[in-house]
Amino acid sequence: MQIAILGGTGDIGEGLALRLAADTPHRVSIGSREAEKAENRAEEYTTELESRGLNATVGGAENAAAAAAAKVVVLAVPPYHVGDTVEAISDELDDGDVLVSPATGMKRDEEGFHYHKPGAGSVTAIVADAAPEGVDVVGAFHNLAAARLANLDADLGIDTLVIGDDEDAKRTVADVAEGIEGLRTLDAGGLANAPEIEGLTPLLINVASNNDGLHDLGIEFK
Amino acid sequence: MQIAILGGTGDIGEGLALRLAADTPHRVSIGSREAEKAENRAEEYTTELESRGLNATVGGAENAAAAAAAKVVVLAVPPYHVGDTVEAISDELDDGDVLVSPATGMKRDEEGFHYHKPGAGSVTAIVADAAPEGVDVVGAFHNLAAARLANLDADLGIDTLVIGDDEDAKRTVADVAEGIEGLRTLDAGGLANAPEIEGLTPLLINVASNNDGLHDLGIEFK
Repeated sequence: MQIAILGGTGDIGEGLALRLAADTPHRVSIGSREAEKAENRAEEYTTELESRGLNATVGGAENAAAAAAAKVVVLAVPPYHVGDTVEAISDELDDGDVLVSPATGMKRDEEGFHYHKPGAGSVTAIVADAAPEGVDVVGAFHNLAAARLANLDADLGIDTLVIGDDEDAKRTVADVAEGIEGLRTLDAGGLANAPEIEGLTPLLINVASNNDGLHDLGIEFK
Repeated sequence: MQIAILGGTGDIGEGLALRLAADTPHRVSIGSREAEKAENRAEEYTTELESRGLNATVGGAENAAAAAAAKVVVLAVPPYHVGDTVEAISDELDDGDVLVSPATGMKRDEEGFHYHKPGAGSVTAIVADAAPEGVDVVGAFHNLAAARLANLDADLGIDTLVIGDDEDAKRTVADVAEGIEGLRTLDAGGLANAPEIEGLTPLLINVASNNDGLHDLGIEFK
């Protein structure tokens, strides 16, 4: 299956691209608003994978071109770019393609980070509102620390929560995610359950910043 | 140290009372709005502890009397009773006593449970607003499944997050909580960080209800 990681030059995009290319049989490409930037970063990722003796490559293209070729399109962009990014690629999406939303909104005060719930209800809801008909939306990969994901020497042993209103689309994304070594997926229900999942990200940052020795935290449900 | 669990006849109160009495050296009493109800339930808890060969007892009293004797007072009452309960016991609290808030607000729709953020910002903030001067407020024990806590045969191996603006009070509560076997405490910062912690409870319920074989879930940060 072809997977596109839009915003794939950013931190979380890098981690997802490297892990998916390293651990799964899927073809992975990253997208950016600038084709050249995506191509250059994709080359760096491929070099990183080859240096580990992995027979895996990452492709790079402008966002719309990356999305056009993919069945699963991950929106690894900041929350305030999510709506625009979906609009920019809408014409390239086919019936049955799946948009994956891993982003969350946060604001910071002196105590720490807080969930900044968008007016639409969640970042995932923004994606769902912008998605063309026939394209399903799934929330996943929210609570993964970018640096840990991008460091292929780091063990995961953690969970990611998957939400969606279409069971087939949710299963497709869960299967892709479970291909990443050490990552377990758990079904957290429909898209309406997005706020509680998106709100976990600031909590993970707050816990890491208040406890010596903890960083790049994930969680295991047990 | 004397610990009072107000609302200690309820599910989460039962679990906390049993675990604290079984695993820690502290004296534990439960409070209820009706003294007789508290006394009867406390006797049941004591019988349960004795049946396991544990030399531990739980006392019972009306809320204000239970609070009067205690240094740490846990508000194991529903979120809509938190403010009234603090008012009802205010005269019995001494300087340096610590109020502990484990409650969260939830509402339910067809997809699952959602965090119902109170106007004050969090349930913990309601407690802080109602607390008399000189009494510190700490949030803890939010994300513990009542049935698992109350079943002394069930292993925990999970975390609880502790928040508070006074470091000494937070340390006192963390020390009490760490006395429970299999429970690790993590510092999640100040009281302003309460909403993300309270929002974890509906998420745990949603995850449990969507995955076969998972129930009474807790989490480990790792």
